Order: sequence, then structure tokens, then C-alpha cells
Amino acid sequence: MSIGVGILGASGYGGAGLIERLLRHPEVEIRGLGTRQHVGRLATAAWPQLAGLTDLTFSAQNEVIERSDVVFCATPHRATAPLVAQARSVGASVIDLSADFRIPPSQYARWYGVEHPHPELFPEARYGLVELHREELCGAAIVAAPGCNATAVSLALAPLAAESLLGPEVNTSVITGASGAGRGVAEDFHFSELNENARPYKVGGEHRHIAEIEATLGRVTAMGKSLSTHTEGPGPTVTFTPHLVPMTRGILATCVTRPENNSLDGDGLLGLYLEYYAGDPLIHVQPQLPTTKAVTGSDRVLVSVRFDPRTGSVIAFAAIDNLGKGAAGQAVQGFNAAFGLDETLGLALAGGWP
Amino acid sequence: MSIGVGILGASGYGGAGLIERLLRHPEVEIRGLGTRQHVGRLATAAWPQLAGLTDLTFSAQNEVIERSDVVFCATPHRATAPLVAQARSVGASVIDLSADFRIPPSQYARWYGVEHPHPELFPEARYGLVELHREELCGAAIVAAPGCNATAVSLALAPLAAESLLGPEVNTSVITGASGAGRGVAEDFHFSELNENARPYKVGGEHRHIAEIEATLGRVTAMGKSLSTHTEGPGPTVTFTPHLVPMTRGILATCVTRPENNSLDGDGLLGLYLEYYAGDPLIHVQPQLPTTKAVTGSDRVLVSVRFDPRTGSVIAFAAIDNLGKGAAGQAVQGFNAAFGLDETLGLALAGGWP
Amino acid sequence: MSIGVGILGASGYGGAGLIERLLRHPEVEIRGLGTRQHVGRLATAAWPQLAGLTDLTFSAQNEVIERSDVVFCATPHRATAPLVAQARSVGASVIDLSADFRIPPSQYARWYGVEHPHPELFPEARYGLVELHREELCGAAIVAAPGCNATAVSLALAPLAAESLLGPEVNTSVITGASGAGRGVAEDFHFSELNENARPYKVGGEHRHIAEIEATLGRVTAMGKSLSTHTEGPGPTVTFTPHLVPMTRGILATCVTRPENNSLDGDGLLGLYLEYYAGDPLIHVQPQLPTTKAVTGSDRVLVSVRFDPRTGSVIAFAAIDNLGKGAAGQAVQGFNAAFGLDETLGLALAGGWP
Amino acid sequence: MSIGVGILGASGYGGAGLIERLLRHPEVEIRGLGTRQHVGRLATAAWPQLAGLTDLTFSAQNEVIERSDVVFCATPHRATAPLVAQARSVGASVIDLSADFRIPPSQYARWYGVEHPHPELFPEARYGLVELHREELCGAAIVAAPGCNATAVSLALAPLAAESLLGPEVNTSVITGASGAGRGVAEDFHFSELNENARPYKVGGEHRHIAEIEATLGRVTAMGKSLSTHTEGPGPTVTFTPHLVPMTRGILATCVTRPENNSLDGDGLLGLYLEYYAGDPLIHVQPQLPTTKAVTGSDRVLVSVRFDPRTGSVIAFAAIDNLGKGAAGQAVQGFNAAFGLDETLGLALAGGWP
Repeated sequence: MSIGVGILGASGYGGAGLIERLLRHPEVEIRGLGTRQHVGRLATAAWPQLAGLTDLTFSAQNEVIERSDVVFCATPHRATAPLVAQARSVGASVIDLSADFRIPPSQYARWYGVEHPHPELFPEARYGLVELHREELCGAAIVAAPGCNATAVSLALAPLAAESLLGPEVNTSVITGASGAGRGVAEDFHFSELNENARPYKVGGEHRHIAEIEATLGRVTAMGKSLSTHTEGPGPTVTFTPHLVPMTRGILATCVTRPENNSLDGDGLLGLYLEYYAGDPLIHVQPQLPTTKAVTGSDRVLVSVRFDPRTGSVIAFAAIDNLGKGAAGQAVQGFNAAFGLDETLGLALAGGWP
Repeated sequence: MSIGVGILGASGYGGAGLIERLLRHPEVEIRGLGTRQHVGRLATAAWPQLAGLTDLTFSAQNEVIERSDVVFCATPHRATAPLVAQARSVGASVIDLSADFRIPPSQYARWYGVEHPHPELFPEARYGLVELHREELCGAAIVAAPGCNATAVSLALAPLAAESLLGPEVNTSVITGASGAGRGVAEDFHFSELNENARPYKVGGEHRHIAEIEATLGRVTAMGKSLSTHTEGPGPTVTFTPHLVPMTRGILATCVTRPENNSLDGDGLLGLYLEYYAGDPLIHVQPQLPTTKAVTGSDRVLVSVRFDPRTGSVIAFAAIDNLGKGAAGQAVQGFNAAFGLDETLGLALAGGWP
Repeated sequence: MSIGVGILGASGYGGAGLIERLLRHPEVEIRGLGTRQHVGRLATAAWPQLAGLTDLTFSAQNEVIERSDVVFCATPHRATAPLVAQARSVGASVIDLSADFRIPPSQYARWYGVEHPHPELFPEARYGLVELHREELCGAAIVAAPGCNATAVSLALAPLAAESLLGPEVNTSVITGASGAGRGVAEDFHFSELNENARPYKVGGEHRHIAEIEATLGRVTAMGKSLSTHTEGPGPTVTFTPHLVPMTRGILATCVTRPENNSLDGDGLLGLYLEYYAGDPLIHVQPQLPTTKAVTGSDRVLVSVRFDPRTGSVIAFAAIDNLGKGAAGQAVQGFNAAFGLDETLGLALAGGWP
Repeated sequence: MSIGVGILGASGYGGAGLIERLLRHPEVEIRGLGTRQHVGRLATAAWPQLAGLTDLTFSAQNEVIERSDVVFCATPHRATAPLVAQARSVGASVIDLSADFRIPPSQYARWYGVEHPHPELFPEARYGLVELHREELCGAAIVAAPGCNATAVSLALAPLAAESLLGPEVNTSVITGASGAGRGVAEDFHFSELNENARPYKVGGEHRHIAEIEATLGRVTAMGKSLSTHTEGPGPTVTFTPHLVPMTRGILATCVTRPENNSLDGDGLLGLYLEYYAGDPLIHVQPQLPTTKAVTGSDRVLVSVRFDPRTGSVIAFAAIDNLGKGAAGQAVQGFNAAFGLDETLGLALAGGWP
């Protein structure tokens, strides 16, 4: 089998991760790299790490869509939905790394500030958090790969939600590297401004990933694990505080809640997590506190959980590479799930150290 | 006036900050630099940034104590109390940067794992968070400079505590640079291990600064602002999660609580904070979210507060330089307060950028 | 005495350094901060490190010039010369941090790609490397502050040039932090692109600072130390290779040459350097190899020199903070020299550590 | 075919790279991980990036040697030669990442300060710079993997040496990340000391890799490309200056020489380099200046060369990952060469970005 794939947004960081993974994926052939800026240039003009290794060139996005059985969209939200529509119109499946099909069109305007451009396509979409949606992803026409922060926070808290162990307050925060904001330059990501600096941003209910997190935790509360994208559940409201720190890759999620009826101590909680993620090849539940370095360059998630006997709080952690499980790795995992392939084909399991 | 001061632990980072500030302090004269490792060597052997600027040499700690009117102790906890006792026995005042006189001897063993070596001295000690203890610090024989994390978290939450706006859960976390752990080498602080890495540590009620935070917030709840070290108040329990990230300096505290009876929105909260810190020269309350870079090299604190209308949570922030207001700056501020000097003498107000 | 100074380009990194130094300079009063982008806004809108410390606002550059006795130009090359002309027309002196008056107008087009806009002003300019031009700077109407790389390389090699110890090849390179390129965003200085990256740039005679270096070394060869800006000397040609690395501040210059008639070993060379810089308060010659951290936040220069007996090469080093002695510090030093003030007024001598 | 391999020094960074590459090598089976510190513990106790991916445990080095057909030594110089002797005595081949068999025993004491412990084994050793020694490595009993700096500098200059285009002076320098110094803690590699710092070290003929560089360039001058380890050639003397900067991985070599009879301009030099490395799968010669990020996580080398018409200097560059082509990658490449396998088996070609 060889599935012809195209990558839109191929000159961004998400695109680089997709090229890396799809070049080594045994069941696919890259048919085109779409971009707006570099049409006609060699891919290596944008990606020095590939110099001498590929003669792929960048093409117009239209052309890539027409050549592909499956289109990966690593393009900005709002600009992506029309590309998805175009791909669907020529019968191509879509793996969408943008935010356009993660939440219902009815909520889209509230979080993204514009009306959803193609609400009619949403029924075809499945939320691509494979660990929680695996069954329904098989055969999906549109896979909406989750946001990087939503991935880390949702995976850190899902086992608690499944056991109704989320307390009345759910306080989540992340520490994130710079690459999650992409390759586009901006003063906040200028080296001299970000190096030796830690700063919170989008505080107080402003971050768009909150919508995904609450939807996911609501569904987990209702359904446990094999979730359905188009079901809603009785979710918690979540306080979410992201922080930017001087590193390129990595998200560390720290999630605190005080369950009202919890009889589990630290060991009990760890056992709960181990059981919940027992069949998931990319999730590693461990007693040690996770670090982002341990997943840099990897598509895995390190998860841990602790109990604070002084306060009764449960503190759950997840570490991911925002460009791995937080972006390209998750997209390829979702692609594998949609096509019934081994879930880890093309993915990176072990990262390097240091 | 010229007060003769000695610095113990002068070859560590706390010591460097004290040398820097006390060299430019108009009312003091440095009488000695104490150290265990470098006795007899030039201070510039340990401190290349001073090469050519000073001919101070390192001496034995005993000698420094005998020559000084005031002894600054930037020495490890447990080893410091005997040095304090020695200083007091010769009539010198002490500014103690260690943890030895921050909490009552009765609680010391629970947090520090050993019995307090000199409980008889604790009645002489005043907790050196100047903004909250200013009045009682005047004339203090022992000033116990607070821990760096306790400083950031306590200052972020004090205005809420003073108005009984701490909810049933108080979730605090910090992002901290490496220098807070000092100059002693260890694998966790090895460049290749910490660079491009974010990691939580001492999770679940393990961090010793919790004791200070809870004591302070309890006193603020009872007394508002002019606190007394030897009073206890009805404090909250606090969940505290510290995170280490790849930067040298800086602490960013993020504190979340959901008050039960809160009628203030974001602007109201900001007004409350502005009023609470109106007379404090080192505290700057601002609507913008604080960043650590803005206080690097400075002894000031940037504080902000937000309200999340979705969840009812208040999110309060404080940013400090852990070696400024978190260590040497705070110690010199406490010294100034104890001696009735202008509180900012010798301190750094504006830091550099970038 | 109080000299009224204005700062043009006050929202860039050079401007921040000037504000910092001139606010604490005892003989000056800041009359205005000029900028193109932020006219009418508070200075603290651009500079969070000053929040709460100043109520200065940004003004149009014209207005600042008219209010000032001395105008500091931290503005781009080519755009600066007209501002200098305007300042001179109203009788103001100029301290120019741009490249516009560093080299003769006859060479300007070759290095900067355009004709010099105001060649008639060049006779008024003096090259502001104070250590080498101190005498002629007194009373100067235009002080042309040297480029950051030129400063480090020229100071590393001047003692050799003065003794005719530059060999037939002079190979110079620098390792530089990102802030030398300023606050303007660009992909090369995007955090994710520069972090964990080292790269050469402008290799093979492309870097404009070469012109300054060769002119300076030529003059030193002819005159020894008290140089005259408008004299040329028999200079070497210099191979110069700059490298960008993931740090914010600092330039480390490494300069290698194999003198043809050298009888000095390492100690002899060090003695030569010590003597050459004996009266210069910002230069510290030391046997230890210099590091950039030791001058971060400082306006000093650390210089060292070694002899390689295997190859006969002399290797000379200089470390500076590119925003200190490489920019604002040097400009203020030049201002002090021009006005006959103590050379170090307003400057930072000791930096912090770490 | 399945070759049983053991890794000594498996808890260091070199060991981690070997585990990573040999786990995915299709022709080998890892028989043991030797270490002095962690005997009996899981490999994942030292290597969090492998948590959940392997159940390998650490063993005593003796045991590993006895179980293996091939022993990889990622152990310190001087301690390694006895391990090599032991491996040879049981008939195992050795891939030695230490310095013990890189230079003749007659020169060992001058550079390493002790007599070589097993000079009798040196005739069995072949210098493992595969690109230059490929033919003689086939069947080698001991492969001496080159030093990381020697690799970068030698590969940058070999094409010039082969054409007698090294001038009378050869000035080489490197910028290197921290991981080359290994996992052992030391103040120079303490995060707070190295971050935001650039520093030269081992200046003036002190660095041990000089011996390798000069030997290699001498052989290339005499033989062109297919070198013999036990031949000496008329080599240049080389001035070598290493610099440490705040990054974890990467070596960028900058090499300057002024050939006496050179008729090639930049394009001509690039053509020369392209031809010289035409058949080498890990070397990519490119017109663009190389960066370390482009080879991070890769075992490739990016090489470029420029001509400075002002000075007549040739400036050659090479960028490697010091833990890739500078250590484990090169060792596995040497192993492949020794066993007649495809040279890139187990290696990483494309790295990630950013």
C-alpha cells in the first residue's frame, strides 16, 4: 500500500515535523509540499536540516490538494477550513493541524472571533486525540488534531475525569517553549526578549485551547474513554494559565484539583493512571515527575500524578514535545488511526538525550 | 555614619549579590568576606566580574564576625544558626539569608529534618519581608530574610489575604531559574541537563517555603499589613508546585484562588493591590502581566492580578529576581529597615534590558 | 553643571542603555526621548524594566533635538547623518552610536552601499574609542562611537600594533550575542531559530566593522596610542569572521597573528598589554582568559593575551558587553571625554554574577 | 546476521547515543550495557527518554565484554586501554570512542600526561575518520573514533590539504556546546555559570585534539584521501582555539589559512570540496554557511568554504553534532565500515528543526 499525501503549510514548523515523519513512513508517498511563500523553491531552501537529503520542491496549495489522497493541513486557523473544503470536494481525506474543526461551529465565533467558514463540514470531523477517540477515528474523513496545550492538559486529567475525581476547581497551567507559536517572527519571540525571561500570557480564560479541554473532560466524565466527538458531557470549568519560557520545544502541564470524594493516595492514583493508559503506545505513566527534555524529539507523553496530603489536592503532570505529540506526531498518529495502520508508523518513540 | 559589615558565605551567589550592593551602600564599610573554601585568596578569584575593582580577600568566618557590627549570613541552613549565635555573643546584629530563623523552632524539625540548633535566639528574630513587617524590623537584632519563593508567593497573595479573599483552595506555583539553587554543582543543574528542559520538583507539600507562605498569609489574614513575626493567624493551606526552567535568574509566581465572597472584577482587584502596596518603594503593581526579565538585576517586585469571569478565579502574579528581592536585595532592604536607613540604599531599582 | 541631553532611537536597545546610564549620570538632565514609533507614549510602554520608575514620554525626534545641548543618536546608519546635521545646525553636540561618522565619507559607499549624506560634517567628527583617542575627543562636536565588534577586536590588538607585532596575517573572529542586531525582529533572531544554534555570518570580508578595525590598527601602528581620527596609518588587512550564538549579550573577540620578530613569551606579552592600558579605567588586562559573563551589565573590557610556542602565534582576547562598552557605555564614556568629565560618570563598572 | 554488541560507559552521553543508534541498527543485538555506577539498575534510571521503551539493565563492564562480539568503549581515556586489552583477549573487536588509540603511543604521554598503558595494541588500531580511512577500516580489530573537535576541523581542511592549499599559518577555532564535556558535573558546566556566557579554553596549543588534527592533515597532504593510520605525512602546525558557548550540542569549526599558490576563488574552492567529498554519504558540501542546528540530532557534517579576496584567506567551515558525528554516530559509522555494512545503518541523517 502506498498512500499519496500532501502537506500544506510545509514551510512552517508543523510542516517540518510532517515532512520528517512522512518521509520515513513506510506506507505513504509525499506527493507535494504546499506553501504560500516559497512556491517553486527547493524544500531545502526553508529547511537546512534536509540539505542534500531530498529534492522535494514547494508547490502551490491547490496543486498539492489535487495530487493527494490525504491532505495534511499545517496552516493557520480560519485559512484552513476552505482548504479542507477543497480537499473534500476532490475526495481527499484531511488531517487538520489547525483549530478549525476542533470545536463545534456554534462555539467557534466565541473563541476565534469570526464565524466558522464551513460549518457544513463539521459532522465529518473527528477529534484526533487518538488515545480517547481511537475507535471513531477509523475511517474518518477529517481528523482534527488537538491543540498542543489541550493535548497535554487533557491527557493529564482524563483518568481523574473518568473516575469523577475532578474537584470543584480545576487549575491547570502549562510551561511552554517558543516553537509552539510557529516560525513567524514577533517581538515576544525575538531571542533577546525571550531568552532569560518567563512570562504568563492569555490569562483569565483567554486561551482558545480551554474550549477543547473542557469539551474533552466533559466527554470523559460521561463516557470514560472511547469518546465520540459529537457528544457533549457534563464538564468542569477550567482555569488555564499558560507561561512562556526560554526553550524551543516542550510543554509541561501542571494540573491541580481537590476531589471531593477521593480515597486514593499517591500510589492509588498512579495505579488508576496506569490502568487508564494501559493500551496506549505513546503514553508512559511513571512515578517520576516528567521533564520536557525526556520527550524532546519524541512523539510520546510522560504522565505522572501526585497527592498532597496536606491539602487534599491531586497534582497531575504531562510532558510532551509541542512539535511531536503536540503537532506533527499527533497528526500522523491520527492519520494512522484513520487508515487502520499501526498507530506508531512514522513516529519517533525515543528522543535523544541531552 | 559608617556601619562595619561582614559577609559570610561570600563565595556563593548570595554573597556576590551582597558584595555588589554593600560596596555601593553609602552607609557601610565591608570589614570582611567569610568563606570556608577560599580563605586567604582574593575575592576576585571567585568573582571574575570584580577583577580589577576590589582588593578584598576572603577570611575565616570567625574573623569576619569579630570585625563586624553587622554580619550578613549567606550560608546554608542549619550551619548558620551557630554563626548567628557567635555573632550575637559579640554583640553584632545579623541579617540572615538562610532559613534558620524564618519559622519557629517548634516547626523547624518538621520541615528541615533536624532540631533547631539555637531555639533560644528565635525571640530576637524578625521576619524580614519588609513590606509586611516594616515597623517591627526597626532595631531588630536578627533579621530572617525570607525564602525567594515565599517572597514571590506571599507578596502576590497578601492583598487578597488582607481582604479575606483567599478561597478554600490556594494553588500556587512558581517558575524559577537555576541560580536559586546556588553555585554548588549537581546533575540537575548541569548545563546539558537543564538547558531545553522544564521540570517540576518537590511536588505535593514537600517544599520548605510552604511553611513561610502559610505563616505569612495567616498573619496577613489576622493583621492586614503591619505584621508581627511572633503572632500566628488563621492561615490557609497552600498547594505549592515549583518548576525549574532553563534560565539563570528569575521567579515568576502564579497564584490561583476562587474567593467565596468576591464582588471585585479585574479593575477592582487591581485597585485593591495598588492601595495595599501604595507606600512600598520596591513593589510595582501594574495592569500588565509581569515578566522576570523586567526585574533581572533589580531588587523590585512586579505584581499583577486578573479575574477569570468564567471560573470565578483570581489569578495573582509576582515576578522577582531570585538573587535580588529573593536574596541579597531583600537582605540589604531588611538591614536598612533594621537600622532606620532609607529602605532602598544600596539597592538596584531599574534593571537592564534585554 | 547640568547638561541637557536628548536620546534619539530611544525605543531600541541602544536607547535603553543610554536611558539607564544618563538617568544616573550626575551631570546631565534628560530633555527628551526621540523615537519614530511611539511618539506620545510613556517610555515604560517600551521598557517594562522602568515601570513605575520614570514618567518620561517619547517625543518626535525634531523636538528632542531642539531641546538638547547634546544629542545621542542610537538610530540606524544612513538615517542618522541628517539628524546629526540638524543637531549641529542648532548648535548641539552629537554622540553618534551609528556608523555614519566612523569612517571617511570616501570609504562610506564601499562599505554601506550608499553615498554619505553629509560628508561636510566629517571633519568635525572624532572616533570615540576613548582609550585610543582621549586627547582629541575633548571638545569634540561629533563623537562617532565605534562599532561593537570593532571595539573588541581593536582593543585586543592595539598593544601588538603599537609594537609592530602584527604578523603578515591577522585573523580575527568574534562570538556575539543576539542583542547586537537590535530589537527589530527577523527570522535569524527568532528564538526558535537561534536557540541551540551557532552560525557564522558575513564571512570573507563582508562585515562593515572591518573598515574601522583596519583604520584603527593602521593609526596605532603609526602613532602608538593618542590617535588622531583624521590620520591614516600603514594598517594590516584583517580577516574577520563573526559568529552568532544563543546568548543575549556579549562579544568575545579572538585574534590570532604570528609576528615576524617577536621575542616576547606569554608573560612578556601580558606585561606589554598591562603597560599599554595602564591608565584606562575601563580596561582590565588579566592573565585569565576572559568570559563574556564577567562583563555582562558592565561597561568594562577584559583583555588577555597568550603565546602558542608550537606555532609562534599570539592569541589576544577581549570580552565586552555589546550593549555596554559596545554601545551605550562607550557612548557615555565618549560624552564624558568630550565634556572633560570623569570618564566613568554614569557607567557601570562591576556587572552582576551569575 | 546479528552481531552481539556491548556498550561500556553506557550511563554517559556517548553511551546514550550508542544505545539510541544500536537499538535501531538492523544488524546488531545489544548484549550488555556496562557502567561503573549503576550496576544492576534499569537503563531507564539513567535515561528518562527511554522510560517504558526498554528493559535493558546496567551490568559490570567485565560481564559486558564477555558477552559481546564487539565492544563499544565510551569510557574515559587512560581507563579505556585496559578494557580494550581485555576485549581483545577474548577475541572481541573494539570501537573506541576514547582518545587511547587515536595517536601513536610515542606521542601519548606528551598530550595525555601518562604513558600509554597498552602500546602493544596500537598496531591493531585504525583511525576511525571513515571518510578518510574507509578502505583500511574494513576488518579493523580496533577502531579509534576521532575526537569531536578533530573531526570537525580535519574535515573542514582536508580538501585544502589534499591540494597543498594550506598556507604557512593554519588558524582553527571551534565553538562548542556543553555536552562534549560529558555528564560529569563541574563548575564550568553549571547552568548558571555557562548560560549567557562565552569563553575560550585550552588556548595556545593546550588542546589534545591538536595532535589528531595535525596527524590527519599531514597524512592528507601526503596521500590525498585513502589514508593509512600508521603513515606520517608532512603536516602543518595548527593554532587551535576552542570556545564554549551556552548550547547543549553542536560544534562549529572555523578554519582560516592563506595559501601561497592559490588560483581558486570561492566557486572554485566549493567545486574542489564537492569533488573531494563526492562519495561520502554523511558529508554535505554546500554554498550556504553551515549552522549547528541543521545537524542537531543528525550524524551528518555540513561543510562550506569561502574566499576572502581582500586578504587572500580561505575560510572553511564544518558543523557537526558533537554527540552525532562527533561521538556515537561516528563510532557506529566506523563499526559499519569495519564490518563491511552499509555505512549509514543505525545512523540519523535528517535532524529535526527547530
